[in-house]
Amino acid sequence: MDVFEAIKERYSYRGSFKNITVPVDHLEKIVQAGLDAPSGGNRQTTQFVIINDPGVIAEVKSAFGDHPYITTAPAFIAAIVDSEPKPYREGGFIFVLEDCSAAIENILLSITDLGYASVWLDGVLRMDGRAAKIGEAIGLPASKKVQILLPVGVPQETLPRREKLPFKERAWFNRYGQ
Amino acid sequence: MDVFEAIKERYSYRGSFKNITVPVDHLEKIVQAGLDAPSGGNRQTTQFVIINDPGVIAEVKSAFGDHPYITTAPAFIAAIVDSEPKPYREGGFIFVLEDCSAAIENILLSITDLGYASVWLDGVLRMDGRAAKIGEAIGLPASKKVQILLPVGVPQETLPRREKLPFKERAWFNRYGQ
Repeated sequence: MDVFEAIKERYSYRGSFKNITVPVDHLEKIVQAGLDAPSGGNRQTTQFVIINDPGVIAEVKSAFGDHPYITTAPAFIAAIVDSEPKPYREGGFIFVLEDCSAAIENILLSITDLGYASVWLDGVLRMDGRAAKIGEAIGLPASKKVQILLPVGVPQETLPRREKLPFKERAWFNRYGQ
Repeated sequence: MDVFEAIKERYSYRGSFKNITVPVDHLEKIVQAGLDAPSGGNRQTTQFVIINDPGVIAEVKSAFGDHPYITTAPAFIAAIVDSEPKPYREGGFIFVLEDCSAAIENILLSITDLGYASVWLDGVLRMDGRAAKIGEAIGLPASKKVQILLPVGVPQETLPRREKLPFKERAWFNRYGQ
C-alpha cells in the first residue's frame, strides 16, 4: 500500500475483530516497523512485547471492561518504556514519549497496510492499575512499564472515522493563523 | 512508495540539501499527512507552520549554528502546540507530545516518499531560546510554542544511517526479555 494511502486509511478502530489469527511473520513485520522509527539521540528507548498466547491474552483482557476491540482481539502489541527514564545527555531531555509515539505510528500504518485494524490505548492504561496488570502478565521488571497497548486483528466491519479539522484551520504558510 | 519501504528508507539526514525549491503542493501534501495522524481523544492538538518565504527562512536559520541541514534547507515545517496544554477530560491526561510525534512520523514518511529528506529537531529547540526565536519569526502568540522543527529539501547525498539494535534485543513474544 502506498504510504499516503496507508496514512489516509488508518483510523482508530473500536469495533470487533474477526476470529482470525494474526500470523507470527505479520506480527514481526509490524513490530519491526516500530523498531525502524527514529528516537532521540538514537537511544531506541521503546521495546515491544507481542502478545499472542491465549493465556497471556486472557490476562490482558481481564484488565479491561467489555469492549469489542478488547474481547475479540486475537493479538496485542505492548510498547514498553523505562518506568523512570534517564535524561538524554546535555539539557536533561527525555524523549521517551516522542520515541514511543513515532514507533506506534509506524506500527499503526503497517497494521493498516496488512489489512488489520487497531486503536491506540494509552490514558486508559494509566487508570485502574491496568498498565501494572498487563506488565505482570508479560513479566515486566519494575524498571519497565507498558506505555501504549494496541489490539491487532482483522476488522469485522468498517466504522465511521472521527472528523478532522480542515487544513486551513490547522496549518499555514510562514505566519501562524494566516 | 510502499509504506514498509518508506519506513525503511526514512533516516535522520544531517547533510546538505540541493538548491531546489520544494513545491507548495508537496509541502501541503506532506503536512496533510501530519494532520491525518491520530490524536488523544481526537483533540488534534498539533498545528503546523510551513516556512518557505526567504525572509522567514533567514530568521529561522539565524537561530542556529552553521549546520548544513539548516543553512541549505529550502523549507522548514514547524510543529506548533499549546505552551500550557490543557488536560484531556478524566484523569487529567495530556497527550500533546504523543499527538505531535505521531504527526511528525507521518510527515517524515511522506517526505521520504516524495524524495526529500529531513531530520527531527527537538531538544535543540529548547536550548538558547531557539523555539522562542522561531516562534517570533512566524508570529506565534504566547499561548503557542514550536515543539519540533523539520528542515525539508532534496538531499545532496546519501549518508550512513545509525545502527539499530536487532529485533530480538528489543522485542519478544508474550514474555519480556525472553
